[in-house]
Amino acid sequence: MQVLVLGAGQLARMMSLAGAPLGLTVRAYDVRTHTVVHPLTLENYQQDLATGLNSCDVVTAEFEHIPQDILEVCQASGKFLPGAEAIRIGGDRRLEKQLLDNAGVPNATYHVVNTETDLEDAIDKIGLPLVLKSALEGYDGKGQWRLKTAQEMPQVWQEIEAFLAESRDEQSIVAEAWIPFDREVSVIGARGKDGAIKVYPLTQNHHESGILSLSVALTDAEALQKQAVEAFEKLSNKLNYVGVLAIEFFDVKGKLLVNEIAPRVHNSGHWTQQGADVCQFENHLRAVTGLPIGDTSLVEATAMVNVIGTDNIPVQIHAIEGVHLHWYEKEKRSGRKMGHINVAGKDKQQLKQRVDTLLKLLAKEDFPGLHQASAEML
Amino acid sequence: MQVLVLGAGQLARMMSLAGAPLGLTVRAYDVRTHTVVHPLTLENYQQDLATGLNSCDVVTAEFEHIPQDILEVCQASGKFLPGAEAIRIGGDRRLEKQLLDNAGVPNATYHVVNTETDLEDAIDKIGLPLVLKSALEGYDGKGQWRLKTAQEMPQVWQEIEAFLAESRDEQSIVAEAWIPFDREVSVIGARGKDGAIKVYPLTQNHHESGILSLSVALTDAEALQKQAVEAFEKLSNKLNYVGVLAIEFFDVKGKLLVNEIAPRVHNSGHWTQQGADVCQFENHLRAVTGLPIGDTSLVEATAMVNVIGTDNIPVQIHAIEGVHLHWYEKEKRSGRKMGHINVAGKDKQQLKQRVDTLLKLLAKEDFPGLHQASAEML
Repeated sequence: MQVLVLGAGQLARMMSLAGAPLGLTVRAYDVRTHTVVHPLTLENYQQDLATGLNSCDVVTAEFEHIPQDILEVCQASGKFLPGAEAIRIGGDRRLEKQLLDNAGVPNATYHVVNTETDLEDAIDKIGLPLVLKSALEGYDGKGQWRLKTAQEMPQVWQEIEAFLAESRDEQSIVAEAWIPFDREVSVIGARGKDGAIKVYPLTQNHHESGILSLSVALTDAEALQKQAVEAFEKLSNKLNYVGVLAIEFFDVKGKLLVNEIAPRVHNSGHWTQQGADVCQFENHLRAVTGLPIGDTSLVEATAMVNVIGTDNIPVQIHAIEGVHLHWYEKEKRSGRKMGHINVAGKDKQQLKQRVDTLLKLLAKEDFPGLHQASAEML
Repeated sequence: MQVLVLGAGQLARMMSLAGAPLGLTVRAYDVRTHTVVHPLTLENYQQDLATGLNSCDVVTAEFEHIPQDILEVCQASGKFLPGAEAIRIGGDRRLEKQLLDNAGVPNATYHVVNTETDLEDAIDKIGLPLVLKSALEGYDGKGQWRLKTAQEMPQVWQEIEAFLAESRDEQSIVAEAWIPFDREVSVIGARGKDGAIKVYPLTQNHHESGILSLSVALTDAEALQKQAVEAFEKLSNKLNYVGVLAIEFFDVKGKLLVNEIAPRVHNSGHWTQQGADVCQFENHLRAVTGLPIGDTSLVEATAMVNVIGTDNIPVQIHAIEGVHLHWYEKEKRSGRKMGHINVAGKDKQQLKQRVDTLLKLLAKEDFPGLHQASAEML
């Protein structure tokens, strides 16, 4: 079977590696260059999207910010899973918040803002402080604001107005209650064509400068896991979802509020390559090709360290038991996800020892905040 | 780093999949078509051997029956590991038996036979029954005889004489004592450039019509493991070997006699993809590229079933926990290795349950002898 993935980045690459043993061939449609390539070798198959869609059995996506016209062509093929609606929702904060409310899944109160009056209404409705996020993808890292006091409003509105003026027509801002969370966690699960669902253990995540830095699979979070599974079931059933879906939560004193969803395999699920019998990449492919979903239970205590903007990885890390590098073979660029390192151990203590050994080998300046985050989470 | 593999079959394919996460790019030199291809996608890089050797950092091999001229060119590149000598020994029974004796590793008594007189000498020296094997690769499955009684000698000699007449000049026959073994076991290990050695647990193997059918990693064979590790150390140190080396043994009442060696990753080590933290494919690449050898200890009780000459694999097998298909995407042909299925469980009992569940789904006619072998070995 052949699977076409929209997007030719590391997620398509890792799907390709996970699918090959099952005889599932993955090709990638690069939405920037409009070419069909092999996500591992980057061989160009000299196909356009229409030909790529004709050749494949299933089309899926590795990201959600996909132009509307491409989504429509894929949807029209009748082969698109999880499908245009789910991808669109994942890429539009307004639709996402609507879905969360419709599915009855706890999330922060919100109000859509297009005008200064809308922003005033948002303050009335939600109170301060507020977080303001662009509904569609921001550009150049822009598109997010904090509004703490009424005095800041004119300045913040001025910035938002300029942002909206420069954005595409359909852009809006979603104002949300600021959540005083204890930690960020996420859950990854898969739903099959038959509606069968399997969910991995919750993952605790640490972000540094807005980019995921460290994920640790939780081994002792039964009550939280129950809430996460319930949210996963409600959302994926509501969407009649097929594939892997990621849900990011705020943990507020033991109560999970959904922050956002991603209709795809997710960086915070990379640890499943070591810590579960069947990883998220294989399970996504299993789901969209109609195979049974594989086992998602935790096999070993596992953590994942993202490698961002550096290729300075000493070979000695390979001598640490339970340490596995996953390199994306991308050109080095500041802030770019270059690879990740999974670390596993028979229990949390052994995991911590191995992560500590790893951190001693990694240059601190290349992994800012990691030592502290690791000390707090492990 | 780029690794060129001599041979473009499933072993190169699985090396490619194992190397990609480490940023190790594997290309394959197909010795039949004299082209450099990607072992997964079969993309043709339009290179000859010389260009392929220039482009790569290391050259290695997935099989040992490689023409002498190719071995010489590779050796001259200064990049060949484990190198021409080890490959040549693995492909020539005479050299192999010499090595075993020189390294002081127990093996069956032998005598090289080129003439009828040699055969008579062999009977005198070794006694009957004898096993007679072509020193170099046989053709069309020919090249092996059993000599049980002196009366059979004229007939057997006639066949051997005809075989030698049709063979290449350098062909001989190696006469060996027939070993009344209890079972066949093998060991896979890796030796690094620094001489560091790590050895996987012994594997018990069942062959059907001369092709490996079932392998089970042994969990309770401490005394045998000690002998296997000793043989591995003696042989690999003697050769100053770098890479993964496989050794097949006869288990004769708890004493291991080496049957043969393979200077490469080996079918009886495919279970390491599930049952060990670092599989044989990754460890071979780690060794030849100078990375530290990864952990070879047993993580789970594991077995491997070869899929031979059939593509009749029901999708329901993917619903069994711990079952992993590894498909080679080759055209179906009788007797051809099409893929393998690894099965793992937390202990031998769970492994047996899962293998039993698997066997119920596989057509008996496609897996002859497997039910009985599994009942005996698990």
